[in-house]
Amino acid sequence: MSNGVALICGGGAFPIAAARAVFARGEQAFLLGLRGIASAEIEQFPHVWLGIGQLGRTFDEISARQIKRVCFIGGLKRPEFSDLRLDWGGVKRIPEIIRLLTGGDDHALKGVIKLFEGEGFDVVGVESFAPELLAGVGDMNKLALSADLAEDLVYAQKFLADLSAYDCGQAVVVANKRVIAVEAVEGTDAMLARVAELREKGRWRAKGPAGLLVKAPKHGQDLRVDLPAIGPDTIANAEKAVLRGIAVAAQGVLMLDRAGLAAQAERAGLFLHGFTEANVQ
Amino acid sequence: MSNGVALICGGGAFPIAAARAVFARGEQAFLLGLRGIASAEIEQFPHVWLGIGQLGRTFDEISARQIKRVCFIGGLKRPEFSDLRLDWGGVKRIPEIIRLLTGGDDHALKGVIKLFEGEGFDVVGVESFAPELLAGVGDMNKLALSADLAEDLVYAQKFLADLSAYDCGQAVVVANKRVIAVEAVEGTDAMLARVAELREKGRWRAKGPAGLLVKAPKHGQDLRVDLPAIGPDTIANAEKAVLRGIAVAAQGVLMLDRAGLAAQAERAGLFLHGFTEANVQ
Repeated sequence: MSNGVALICGGGAFPIAAARAVFARGEQAFLLGLRGIASAEIEQFPHVWLGIGQLGRTFDEISARQIKRVCFIGGLKRPEFSDLRLDWGGVKRIPEIIRLLTGGDDHALKGVIKLFEGEGFDVVGVESFAPELLAGVGDMNKLALSADLAEDLVYAQKFLADLSAYDCGQAVVVANKRVIAVEAVEGTDAMLARVAELREKGRWRAKGPAGLLVKAPKHGQDLRVDLPAIGPDTIANAEKAVLRGIAVAAQGVLMLDRAGLAAQAERAGLFLHGFTEANVQ
Repeated sequence: MSNGVALICGGGAFPIAAARAVFARGEQAFLLGLRGIASAEIEQFPHVWLGIGQLGRTFDEISARQIKRVCFIGGLKRPEFSDLRLDWGGVKRIPEIIRLLTGGDDHALKGVIKLFEGEGFDVVGVESFAPELLAGVGDMNKLALSADLAEDLVYAQKFLADLSAYDCGQAVVVANKRVIAVEAVEGTDAMLARVAELREKGRWRAKGPAGLLVKAPKHGQDLRVDLPAIGPDTIANAEKAVLRGIAVAAQGVLMLDRAGLAAQAERAGLFLHGFTEANVQ
């Protein structure tokens, strides 16, 4: 029953990278692309296309291949109920689906996992088959996290942990134990653009590189779904905001090309550090 | 020794309104305008102009008039040490001043209060002589806070209370127990502009008026200095963000013209509510 892993593919390049990682290990992946969301590149692997409401067919396609492990990967906007075209397997589960769509994001994602587990599948995280797609531990380039910034990092970690009780952002910019910007619905890139603007306008006065971006999944978040990610834009925007570096939760933040991002950050004069909870007392 | 109150005047119209309120009560106010910051309108009242570093002279001017009560009022950006032109009374207190300038904003303000108390003055809040300049309790216009929004208000109050441990923003926009935007260094107006943009871009999808702005002083904040404020811009920006209303901490948020703001909000279809801590269990 352990014939590889079924990847339920949202948008972006992560599903492709994950499939590549699976096959590179000599294992099998079967990709289920969400129509209108997943990239056409999934077609280079064994795949099928599905509408987001075709729950029944999703279960059938995976079961038919004797696959037990299922992983959700790639970007997915929270659907409106009217966007769902439910198949019979979906219609039978309408009460559960309505419950999913009426809580916070966390609630919805946990519910989706339960739905799959209820069908006998093991829902797994990307770390179980492609850990290289997640942030590493410690300094990822030659620019080390300095002692003064380590204090800011601990401050930011505590801040994000306290915010975890709310279905809110997963990133913050901190400088000298001062919260410069907090991410909510706008996303990390928009938050970093705001920080750049605050510096230009003199609303945040700092000489030269200052402050750090800290990004992490929510405390208590199920790491099997909806992990935060950083990419080339994150680093370019952190450079524009003239930060000193970026710290991400080790094994808790997706990075498509870890070595490439570490090098890009280094060229921009930014450290790139993967922190663990051990830092916070 | 109770010859009225000394108003140490930062920028904006609040010092003028406060002085007017004092004289309207038949009491005396003496205004100490911070040069380059306070409005020239203070000159219609008994006043003196001072540089921000002239601590010694500040104490002397107040003492010479047998005034015991001192109130800080009006906007004041945190000065850089290099901006201060310390007089002898300031130079003598350099170690204390350096301590003030190296902590968070809260720390600095508490330190300034201590400095004045150390000289024998009573530092008082605006509520002690002009409570009409603060938010009232309950609905301030005809648009009442509805039951569903009352839940969001409690959620937002808890959120802001949890954020109080950090020297961070004092406002948040919440809709259906979802944090849409959090204020940090950018200020309330910029945060509301962001919310309007999130709606326009469809990043936050809501039909018609939705969400509320909640603004309050930090928990444990000394209400004698640096109270948050709302004004006509706050209401205009909340209207542009198509919110349902504004809730502020009763007696904890400055409002220059309470009746005028309540009417402006009502015309914009926004409720304006002053909440108390009693709402939060």
